[in-house]
Amino acid sequence: MDKKRKPYQLVSREWKSEDTIVKLKHGHIGSGHFSVIAGPCAIENEDQIFTICEFLSKLNIKLLRGGAYKPRTSPYSFQGLKKEGLMLMRQAADKYNMDVVTEVMDTNLVDEVAQYADVLQVGTRNMQNYQLLRALSKINKPVLLKRGMSSTLEEWLLAAEYILSGGNDQVILCERGIRTFETATRNTLDLSIVPLVKSLSHLPIIVDPSQGTGIRELIAPMSLAAMAAGADGLMLEVHNHPEEALSDGAQSLYFDQFKDLIYRLQEAGTFFGKTLDFNTEKILI
Amino acid sequence: MDKKRKPYQLVSREWKSEDTIVKLKHGHIGSGHFSVIAGPCAIENEDQIFTICEFLSKLNIKLLRGGAYKPRTSPYSFQGLKKEGLMLMRQAADKYNMDVVTEVMDTNLVDEVAQYADVLQVGTRNMQNYQLLRALSKINKPVLLKRGMSSTLEEWLLAAEYILSGGNDQVILCERGIRTFETATRNTLDLSIVPLVKSLSHLPIIVDPSQGTGIRELIAPMSLAAMAAGADGLMLEVHNHPEEALSDGAQSLYFDQFKDLIYRLQEAGTFFGKTLDFNTEKILI
Amino acid sequence: MDKKRKPYQLVSREWKSEDTIVKLKHGHIGSGHFSVIAGPCAIENEDQIFTICEFLSKLNIKLLRGGAYKPRTSPYSFQGLKKEGLMLMRQAADKYNMDVVTEVMDTNLVDEVAQYADVLQVGTRNMQNYQLLRALSKINKPVLLKRGMSSTLEEWLLAAEYILSGGNDQVILCERGIRTFETATRNTLDLSIVPLVKSLSHLPIIVDPSQGTGIRELIAPMSLAAMAAGADGLMLEVHNHPEEALSDGAQSLYFDQFKDLIYRLQEAGTFFGKTLDFNTEKILI
Amino acid sequence: MDKKRKPYQLVSREWKSEDTIVKLKHGHIGSGHFSVIAGPCAIENEDQIFTICEFLSKLNIKLLRGGAYKPRTSPYSFQGLKKEGLMLMRQAADKYNMDVVTEVMDTNLVDEVAQYADVLQVGTRNMQNYQLLRALSKINKPVLLKRGMSSTLEEWLLAAEYILSGGNDQVILCERGIRTFETATRNTLDLSIVPLVKSLSHLPIIVDPSQGTGIRELIAPMSLAAMAAGADGLMLEVHNHPEEALSDGAQSLYFDQFKDLIYRLQEAGTFFGKTLDFNTEKILI
Repeated sequence: MDKKRKPYQLVSREWKSEDTIVKLKHGHIGSGHFSVIAGPCAIENEDQIFTICEFLSKLNIKLLRGGAYKPRTSPYSFQGLKKEGLMLMRQAADKYNMDVVTEVMDTNLVDEVAQYADVLQVGTRNMQNYQLLRALSKINKPVLLKRGMSSTLEEWLLAAEYILSGGNDQVILCERGIRTFETATRNTLDLSIVPLVKSLSHLPIIVDPSQGTGIRELIAPMSLAAMAAGADGLMLEVHNHPEEALSDGAQSLYFDQFKDLIYRLQEAGTFFGKTLDFNTEKILI
Repeated sequence: MDKKRKPYQLVSREWKSEDTIVKLKHGHIGSGHFSVIAGPCAIENEDQIFTICEFLSKLNIKLLRGGAYKPRTSPYSFQGLKKEGLMLMRQAADKYNMDVVTEVMDTNLVDEVAQYADVLQVGTRNMQNYQLLRALSKINKPVLLKRGMSSTLEEWLLAAEYILSGGNDQVILCERGIRTFETATRNTLDLSIVPLVKSLSHLPIIVDPSQGTGIRELIAPMSLAAMAAGADGLMLEVHNHPEEALSDGAQSLYFDQFKDLIYRLQEAGTFFGKTLDFNTEKILI
Repeated sequence: MDKKRKPYQLVSREWKSEDTIVKLKHGHIGSGHFSVIAGPCAIENEDQIFTICEFLSKLNIKLLRGGAYKPRTSPYSFQGLKKEGLMLMRQAADKYNMDVVTEVMDTNLVDEVAQYADVLQVGTRNMQNYQLLRALSKINKPVLLKRGMSSTLEEWLLAAEYILSGGNDQVILCERGIRTFETATRNTLDLSIVPLVKSLSHLPIIVDPSQGTGIRELIAPMSLAAMAAGADGLMLEVHNHPEEALSDGAQSLYFDQFKDLIYRLQEAGTFFGKTLDFNTEKILI
Repeated sequence: MDKKRKPYQLVSREWKSEDTIVKLKHGHIGSGHFSVIAGPCAIENEDQIFTICEFLSKLNIKLLRGGAYKPRTSPYSFQGLKKEGLMLMRQAADKYNMDVVTEVMDTNLVDEVAQYADVLQVGTRNMQNYQLLRALSKINKPVLLKRGMSSTLEEWLLAAEYILSGGNDQVILCERGIRTFETATRNTLDLSIVPLVKSLSHLPIIVDPSQGTGIRELIAPMSLAAMAAGADGLMLEVHNHPEEALSDGAQSLYFDQFKDLIYRLQEAGTFFGKTLDFNTEKILI
């Protein structure tokens, strides 16, 4: 679509025409597969994470998300359980055969987080934290790179280029809503970027409708819309007690809502020709 | 979702819980029906509009769009065929049993446009042209109200309230992308607004991915995404010779692309439980 | 600064290198002169407008602003006194030797508003109402063209080009804040556009810090900043009882604040080499 | 202005009513003083930085800016001289009796940068890098906190709150333009935020018109406007050979332009009642 010379190279379709597949312990992301990464906004305690993890495993969800180190706008908000949170996630994921996806906020924490996580997430506030991107280019684990809240497509792909050019080609892009004048939703989920990214880059791209909309009731329709737009998966917030969540309760799905959505995504996956981790035969609930 | 008192009333679900159905000569818009409004950006000449109209009719498209009076950023750009364009649209639509949707830019033109059109469109630049909205509240034809390029959801619903409060309840909302910092797409198509509008209002809402993205290749995926998000239809630009179009060529679909999209939408409509004007039995091409 | 070919012509410095001077009954706008247009957001009643007008005249203010036809987001808000408001403004202005600046919202109202006003204002919502711009290009009174709330510099200059290309070269541009993600101020006042407009165009440009910020306390510093940035004047909201104003009370100055600001602007005008309508010798209060 | 309970505390006027004064080796920032921080975008070589520093010292500029570690959108752009750049800045500043202001991009670099710099700058991309903010809250040197390119006022003050709540109250805020739809300028310089910050917080706030506009010709008028709006100083890019600069040449002032601006600021400082580091008696050129 864009004929002018692009400032990025390794992330481009011109450089590598076939889809990149990001390999995980329990599956993969990309290339016709539709992945669901789910879990709470933050790890709060052992009971919470094991309860959620058990629930997810019954739906054959293979990727557990959850914040241990939380970037919070206020220094007085709950900052996460930190190392204890990482350990709890790891134990829960191991028990239920899942991969752990969690955020790393600083170069100093890369080793510690990499010890417990299977996929290291770069949050929206750190998309242009270039020292962190360089550090992540040297590890041998996949990186999930969220779009900056006011980052252009080009800046986002260049942030990914930092990681690839340092030697790590296992990068998953994640659209999570951009900042606009509209306040009816928490952010404006930019789904058009999905087919545009897929035409310009070989990297898989997933969508986070929880952060993207901030409104629980919009998550199911926007999840289906993301699949229809060509996304390789979703990142979803789910909680056993959303109304008591320490953060982001208003955008966390109830178990019943989440289960309904997974069933619906499964049907839609069949229609859109996507393979999925979950399928009705195996689902236990 | 929003518990605070809303500044609009007649457009709200609280005022009227069931979906509004907008009645047309050849069908209707809203309430489980998925409508496609298609045609060129601008009416250019008799051959162009009859060729496009014949093509659309073979696919059972019932709603013809096209600009006769064109709002153009530069006074030196093609401004539309004006009354001649309206007459050509009317003739073509009558021949092929379609309804005409076209823009009215000024109170002085309401009578003239209403004489030829079945649905009067308010463009993004006029969403807050309140004299025009008031004039349209007094006609007995449906109004298609595009979202202002930087209008909040609340401002949009209040613009619709101007029309309903004047006595015309036949209003179709149309999301067409909002203005953001992102320049990779022409606008940022805000699909999250679709389920949010449907929860707050009884009015039908359609999506214009042509204006919304400005990139031909993104139109098919975003059309499917709009349906998945719960939209009541689409507004699409199609041209017999996009590369020679007098305006918006880069976002106009080729006939083959349009046909493929209609077939795909038909399948998707079945999946998403939407009735459609076009169905395979009748399609002649 | 920008070497590429510009899409506008008549408004450009290349077309006309010397500053345009907009002539008024009681003075002029542009070219080294610093003008203050002041008055209430809306004309509310005879007592209000005469009280404000008398006050302004004592400070040698020569340009009276006030809304008679008000574009309001909600159909249920006060819409202005309409023709009665125009007549009251005219009477008050005539009594105190001032020029009237007021908004025209629709082509149908151009004749009526032109009968009472000396300068016709196009509001932010109508900057791309091209029928209105064309109608105003045919009158022989100056037009004050506010920047659209999400209009680029280029779109704004092209809107002015509509007026000049129709035959009216008496155009005043007015920056009034743009719509951004920031909600701490009502809009984001874009003062950088002032020197940029002055380098690209020969038209005078004034600034509206009342609409631009929406916060009374910010008006004085932003008025001085506008002068420092090179603006040709200001548009200010002032009210005899801001706390009882029917609209925009929070951004209307009290008389004392307004008077202090005028004295301060007078000193600053001397420093910045601007001539002013008001000067200490003549001020009566 | 805002009566609701604020989420920040230590940075607020309610907590501390008098202006914070940030102490430097060669002067201070804040409370009636107008400071100019000037220098090249990036340190390029010994000759460049000593030439610029000598020039600045003749104008009595006391604060030297320059990038040693540069956050660049592309991994293939010049990334700065790193430690060598820090050493060169330190030597040049010591020779000419200036304080060094330079960016720190990562927690791992805090010690190294603090060894050479007098003020540590947090760039716009790192405003919400909370680990970095916490690290800087523990040093005993001032921090210059640039506003995030899409950060609200509240998020910005909360980022400062991270630093104060950790024990470092020597924080300077710096407005550097926000990201909007307007592309005529590099960013949209939000001067209204200056008086708003000063009413809400006791911290000094300076303005960077070089980054804010990206256009050399706009820097002088916007510098004066910043002073008029109440700013406590400026951050300016100046280069001995802007056309050969390795980064940001288009927004770097020529020596002659810079000198003219300093003379003009000095006059304006007298008018606006600001004390300044430079004054005509001592200026050697």
